[in-house]
Amino acid sequence: MGFSLGDFNLSLAIRFLSMDMVENAKSGHPGMPMGMADVATVLYKYFLKFNPQAPDWADRDRFILSAGHGSALLYSLLYLTGYEDIDINQLKSFRKLGSKTAGHPEYHLAKGIETSTGPLGQGLANGVGMALAERMLNAEFGDELVNHKTYIIVSDGCLAEGISQEAISIAGHLRLKNLIILFDDNGITIDGPINLSTSDNHLKRFEASNWNVKQIDGHDYNQIRQALEVAQTSDKPMFIACKTKIGFGSPTKEGKSSAHGSPLGREEIVKIREKFNWQSPPFVIPKEILNEWRSIAARNLDEYNRWNKEFNNSNKKDKLKSYLSGEIPLSFKQGSESLKRKLCIEANTDEPSRKSSERIVELMAEHIENIRGGSADLTPSNNTKARNQNPITPGDYSGRYIHYGIREHAMAAMMNGIVLHGGFIPYGGTFLAFSDYCRPAIRLSALMALRVIYVMTHDSIGLGEDGPTHQPVEHLAALRAIPNLLVFRPCDVIETLECWDIALNQQGTPSVLALSRQNLPQLRKEYFKENHSALGAYIIKKEEKELKVTIFASGSEVSLALVVAEKLEEAGSGARVISVPCMDLFKMQDKEYQVSLTCNNSLKVAIEAGVEQGWERLIGAHGIFIGMESFGESGTASELFKYFGFDPENIFKKITPYLKK
Amino acid sequence: MGFSLGDFNLSLAIRFLSMDMVENAKSGHPGMPMGMADVATVLYKYFLKFNPQAPDWADRDRFILSAGHGSALLYSLLYLTGYEDIDINQLKSFRKLGSKTAGHPEYHLAKGIETSTGPLGQGLANGVGMALAERMLNAEFGDELVNHKTYIIVSDGCLAEGISQEAISIAGHLRLKNLIILFDDNGITIDGPINLSTSDNHLKRFEASNWNVKQIDGHDYNQIRQALEVAQTSDKPMFIACKTKIGFGSPTKEGKSSAHGSPLGREEIVKIREKFNWQSPPFVIPKEILNEWRSIAARNLDEYNRWNKEFNNSNKKDKLKSYLSGEIPLSFKQGSESLKRKLCIEANTDEPSRKSSERIVELMAEHIENIRGGSADLTPSNNTKARNQNPITPGDYSGRYIHYGIREHAMAAMMNGIVLHGGFIPYGGTFLAFSDYCRPAIRLSALMALRVIYVMTHDSIGLGEDGPTHQPVEHLAALRAIPNLLVFRPCDVIETLECWDIALNQQGTPSVLALSRQNLPQLRKEYFKENHSALGAYIIKKEEKELKVTIFASGSEVSLALVVAEKLEEAGSGARVISVPCMDLFKMQDKEYQVSLTCNNSLKVAIEAGVEQGWERLIGAHGIFIGMESFGESGTASELFKYFGFDPENIFKKITPYLKK
Repeated sequence: MGFSLGDFNLSLAIRFLSMDMVENAKSGHPGMPMGMADVATVLYKYFLKFNPQAPDWADRDRFILSAGHGSALLYSLLYLTGYEDIDINQLKSFRKLGSKTAGHPEYHLAKGIETSTGPLGQGLANGVGMALAERMLNAEFGDELVNHKTYIIVSDGCLAEGISQEAISIAGHLRLKNLIILFDDNGITIDGPINLSTSDNHLKRFEASNWNVKQIDGHDYNQIRQALEVAQTSDKPMFIACKTKIGFGSPTKEGKSSAHGSPLGREEIVKIREKFNWQSPPFVIPKEILNEWRSIAARNLDEYNRWNKEFNNSNKKDKLKSYLSGEIPLSFKQGSESLKRKLCIEANTDEPSRKSSERIVELMAEHIENIRGGSADLTPSNNTKARNQNPITPGDYSGRYIHYGIREHAMAAMMNGIVLHGGFIPYGGTFLAFSDYCRPAIRLSALMALRVIYVMTHDSIGLGEDGPTHQPVEHLAALRAIPNLLVFRPCDVIETLECWDIALNQQGTPSVLALSRQNLPQLRKEYFKENHSALGAYIIKKEEKELKVTIFASGSEVSLALVVAEKLEEAGSGARVISVPCMDLFKMQDKEYQVSLTCNNSLKVAIEAGVEQGWERLIGAHGIFIGMESFGESGTASELFKYFGFDPENIFKKITPYLKK
Repeated sequence: MGFSLGDFNLSLAIRFLSMDMVENAKSGHPGMPMGMADVATVLYKYFLKFNPQAPDWADRDRFILSAGHGSALLYSLLYLTGYEDIDINQLKSFRKLGSKTAGHPEYHLAKGIETSTGPLGQGLANGVGMALAERMLNAEFGDELVNHKTYIIVSDGCLAEGISQEAISIAGHLRLKNLIILFDDNGITIDGPINLSTSDNHLKRFEASNWNVKQIDGHDYNQIRQALEVAQTSDKPMFIACKTKIGFGSPTKEGKSSAHGSPLGREEIVKIREKFNWQSPPFVIPKEILNEWRSIAARNLDEYNRWNKEFNNSNKKDKLKSYLSGEIPLSFKQGSESLKRKLCIEANTDEPSRKSSERIVELMAEHIENIRGGSADLTPSNNTKARNQNPITPGDYSGRYIHYGIREHAMAAMMNGIVLHGGFIPYGGTFLAFSDYCRPAIRLSALMALRVIYVMTHDSIGLGEDGPTHQPVEHLAALRAIPNLLVFRPCDVIETLECWDIALNQQGTPSVLALSRQNLPQLRKEYFKENHSALGAYIIKKEEKELKVTIFASGSEVSLALVVAEKLEEAGSGARVISVPCMDLFKMQDKEYQVSLTCNNSLKVAIEAGVEQGWERLIGAHGIFIGMESFGESGTASELFKYFGFDPENIFKKITPYLKK
């Protein structure tokens, strides 16, 4: 086979730990760690730049297990190389409630886990985001402070998912030379051999997207080492297809689906122990092998010390620190505040909220050096690009705007990767209807608690003639259903400012800004320093007569609610209007405040050009909801609003019968 | 250029109609129709098998405009070739409310529109589904009755979206030789030239997935014709990259982004008319050109007549009719009914609902010849494959099970295509958490009103150790938010039978069956012929003492609700339990029935291992909801249910304080 006994023993340590973990947990995936143990050993022993004592070292290489079901591989590596978070007891608690060693790697549980993986293809696209972040940071701080690789282990499943193509395509286009994919080419999926469903030539596929490629025997240490050696100086991202045997070493399950997702069984493990003459009991690694694993990290100590010296002596130290802290500079806050004041004084800024958002984009581009904008090829529609933002181009990463192409899913997952990498605050645009295209990655922004800002314009039937496929109807509800995600739908320029401000200051929560295509009149004309939108919902118009009706509304429907309220007042019924720019934030307010808005004897009405789901919380089961019950239609915005019942006459008529009762 | 003046004039007719439509509508996309007019002309004139007088002809070629924004191209073609639905007035009503000529092609609006397109990449994947349906139907009925092509026009955007790779990959694998993609390779996207974001070699990419490929000048009639000629006898699916100029013929906008998505302007159009010496006014096609267009369809009359004769004389006529009707055979209904009776008598079938679902799968495979199952590589987990279902393999389409591979998005969009094509009833499985991966296509199942059945197992934290990335929490709510989609979550084997029965009988509505990984006790033991689940919600346990509490629950939480109710009864409070297998169906019941379940003075409680959103409709704003507020965790199912508060003690304790009040 052409390997040193030393390396083989190191990889056996991974194999036996992984087998033992799965066996002990009585569930899990042993086949992949056993198949990729050799590749992982060579990567860690000879190439990976890491320091278990300083797991947050900014210039470390990133290692991502995109095939997250093989988590035992990652946990074994973290234990063997000496990461504090993952001790032997953690390996014994694999997949148990409360452990750091969850079924799939969870970012927030332990240092050394660079991203949460499991939903296939996400880790790959996260890695592309990290590799881009590395290049962008390098462009600002130079080779001495930023120059590291991103290694990703991917499975057949990762490469089958569509997101992989989006990520591969943009990585090749942007020539991310510090990105290396190691493909666990084991020819096996859950249903059986890969040829049940696939006959792609992945080498050719990656070449078609401008990658360097190489195919190797994933159990041949020399080939692995040579390939990784070549990758160190590649001028493009590099794809290494490693032919492996799933469940390598298992006498009856090697190379079979049965090695994938279940414990091998005690008997089988006994046989493997015999085969490799592995004498030590479960979870015990022979001392000399463990020592060799532990000594590997020392290889990087010189580099780690050099980097620290460089960092401490650098005149860019403070800037880099500030980039990594992710804090919003005071100058932006001041700029934003004075813009708010100015707009309130002028009190005549009627414009689409996507246009209002562009004002903040300009302000951010001016004051927040480490903000990176982008759009999935809807830049002129999303209004996401500031005048002074130059695009990132292949080989030149000093720009501050990313043309993600028509790749919503990769955009979202790359933004996750950019935040995970550290150094930048990303925002990216598409149409709200296409939030569906990137929903799996939005969910991961929320699950990993990452400040990713989604700028989603054309937020209702107000999109107009493009019709039902492009008109979001259920998307606000569907996004609000995701835990730890803030969904904003501002009603005018002032709320748009406020919502952006909140989103930027949420370091542990992603945000969606749902913005209008069509014009919105400025409703907030009195200046308050306090951010009213931060309450999630607030009274935007008090009743003049005795309170009879409370109308809740968001976004473009708030101005409509105000017209209806006026009609009601004219007809003798006091009407209050509550603007709801963020339902999620309202739910987080103290009970007293919530009750003060929702509990009174007035008739409750809600207006939103979307489905009802979620509004019952505010209006109760018997309130009146004015919204959408079907998909939209193709027509002008104003026709559509009327057609679907969003006109003051219609709403007034729906309300009045209840007032007579 | 090498074209006959005749063909050029035909294509000018498309160009001028498209320009006039967009100009008249004051919005829309002229560039693409102008760029692809030559390709479309050659396709329709020399190759496409169609009959405007019989637009539903089962053996017609399918033509899909995946780049749906270029809808003016399709509408022009339908008008020019004489489809009744699209007359000149429809072209003049382009993008207007109530017209058949919506901003993007909408399937339900006019014959000749084979699928709703616009969300990029979907049409491509629909087409792969249609091409597979064609081969599957051919396997059953032979070349004489079924032998047609599927042509798809795709854009750069279609090919950038991840779904395209999934679809291309499986189409190449399955060797769908009757599938032809025509790529509008115009080098332009909304943000600008394609090289802002992409540098893929698409020819190589398609070759890597086993397609035949050809690159041509999309304005050279000979090259177009030769390429399509080659495609007629291709042994693989064929990709033809047509180099075109967006906005072909426009003196100042040809080849530019500005031709993409806005009217060209009157002045520009005047110049184009002069350039091509086009004398007739807007919307008027010179008689001889219109006549030539109208005569094109006659080319297919012989074939159409031959087919009809063949069909009428065929001993398979009734079988084909039955396939196309999509009706469920009586024998299945009887089998299903007697299974229900048997299980009720035995009254001891405790099993996961995915296992219960497998019983129906077996029954369907036995009785419904034209059902086609599949899974996105989770066959053994989704329990979607019957024993007698052989897989479809490359070149042999007589099997009845589709290994979709790890391609949820393509699976869903292909199932849409299979239904659109006609002849089959498709169902396909994945984990409920990965409904996000195919959500854009699920939305289109609903928008197009297609009977696609999604079998989504592992429907809650009950999935266990695989952890939060795999545990659906918000997915039930998010799916329920989609209009015209039935989301089922049966509580036991009997409800599973009932829900499947409803799903199969909904010809105009897709369904999601959310099924458990873990065991569910049989709760329904008394046999009723009526399908209780069809009510959406119904009383599964009446109160014994005076009614104090009404508990709503779905799926695995119904048995828990019953235990809680028993405890309440023991403590002196009458408790009613309402099983809610389908919230959407409950909303459709008459008001009286709805009120009978939700309006009484008892305390309202709902239990579901998901987010609250949607349940407020049943329990009001002040009911008690027992559910999830965060993402899940990795651990055993039983530990997790306890950890997140789904145990009778905890729920009982939450309820009792309210009863004392």
